[in-house]
Amino acid sequence: MTNNKMMKTLKVIKIGGNIIDDAIALENFLVEFSEIEGPKILVHGGGKLATKLAEQMHVEVQMIEGRRITNAETLDIITMVYAGKINKNIVAALQKNSCNSVGFTGADGNTIIAEKRPVEEIDYGFAGDVISVNLRVLETLLNNHITPVFCAITHDEKGQLLNTNADTIASELAIAFAKKYQSQLYYCFEKKGVLLDVHNDDSVVENINKETYQEFLKKNVIAGGMLPKLTNCFHAIDQKVHKVCIGKSEMLFNKKIKYTTIQA
Amino acid sequence: MTNNKMMKTLKVIKIGGNIIDDAIALENFLVEFSEIEGPKILVHGGGKLATKLAEQMHVEVQMIEGRRITNAETLDIITMVYAGKINKNIVAALQKNSCNSVGFTGADGNTIIAEKRPVEEIDYGFAGDVISVNLRVLETLLNNHITPVFCAITHDEKGQLLNTNADTIASELAIAFAKKYQSQLYYCFEKKGVLLDVHNDDSVVENINKETYQEFLKKNVIAGGMLPKLTNCFHAIDQKVHKVCIGKSEMLFNKKIKYTTIQA
Repeated sequence: MTNNKMMKTLKVIKIGGNIIDDAIALENFLVEFSEIEGPKILVHGGGKLATKLAEQMHVEVQMIEGRRITNAETLDIITMVYAGKINKNIVAALQKNSCNSVGFTGADGNTIIAEKRPVEEIDYGFAGDVISVNLRVLETLLNNHITPVFCAITHDEKGQLLNTNADTIASELAIAFAKKYQSQLYYCFEKKGVLLDVHNDDSVVENINKETYQEFLKKNVIAGGMLPKLTNCFHAIDQKVHKVCIGKSEMLFNKKIKYTTIQA
Repeated sequence: MTNNKMMKTLKVIKIGGNIIDDAIALENFLVEFSEIEGPKILVHGGGKLATKLAEQMHVEVQMIEGRRITNAETLDIITMVYAGKINKNIVAALQKNSCNSVGFTGADGNTIIAEKRPVEEIDYGFAGDVISVNLRVLETLLNNHITPVFCAITHDEKGQLLNTNADTIASELAIAFAKKYQSQLYYCFEKKGVLLDVHNDDSVVENINKETYQEFLKKNVIAGGMLPKLTNCFHAIDQKVHKVCIGKSEMLFNKKIKYTTIQA
């Protein structure tokens, strides 16, 4: 505990489509994000823009079990949309708010190394599973009060970019930093958190641990889309991330709003 | 001179379409670039990819006097192609070659601040003229042996990305670093340098100064496309850049090849 008390806090904050796809929501979020004190990292997903560009370019988007199959053309589109349009506009907006930031893929600074997902029953194409995270460049920037902004792209150190789930990038960053910081992981999405009744936004489970999670699973309470998110959350908690929360982005700024905290 | 002798050398190297648009040429260049010792910055143009994507998306590319008119749609395309596809694939290739690098626009780290070109006879749209360069983040990275890779995008500190000529970005970086480094600026393009006879690749003018430049202009010797490049070169020399060269990228690696050095 003494050691933890001496460690600085680092917030890793992941935002998804409900913010990315809504220009006003994004602008408002980035104003508030800029005001968060202390070291922080922003991770963003791609929202619907990549699918839209693929349609414009007449590239077919292939999905299997909710996952995008990343062929070479799709990887190009993702790289253009995530690392180009979305990432750089976020960085420019943060600069406007006097939050000095640098945009990252996992290739930049060799920060996130992944391997191409092995072909088993499904060939996911250029999808990358994270192998390791290098903190050196990120720490240097954080020590200089600069905020890294990550999009959902990694690389394999052999010259190949890879598409990696943004939730996973956020948890892997929080885990890697947990050795040196009191790292906190916030998944911001369109719901207030884990809901007992998916139609009632006030039925938030404020604390969830593995035991209660198992109970909810048995009762079939948790919505399907939440399952991979919660898997990431429990993995982060197991790997010593100090705080893991899931809910609306307002949980970061408004103490009155309810959200779900994941516990060991 | 004593001061200069104590200053470290920094190479700012700009590559254009002849390398960017040729996958094998780019791969080979990046292998050799990775082997250059000491601090270095790579600046890349966009080549033909942005025009190709605009065609695929049925966005009309408007050119006036050889300059692209950057409307909002074109800016999006440029941001996707330059900062996304080209920049991130270059960074991934450099990592493969063990050259640790981070991709930049001028928005990243607030490194290059520009203003939207005022509308006079022509409205260039979201075209940016450089106002200032912030070295802090770049110096921090260079001191950590990390190579910044710049694409031709800046920002206005008010949230707006801007399209800025890559030659200008290279010269502005070299100029800003000239106070702290022996900064050297290399423009790599498809010719060996300034040619006395545009059809004879061996008619390289190995040294050019303002006086000889004026003579060549009077004799109408210099090809049209060279004029803005040479304006950038002389501007850099005037602003104390220690060495300015123009020629094929081989000038960086092969001592036997001829190229043009600009002199005060």
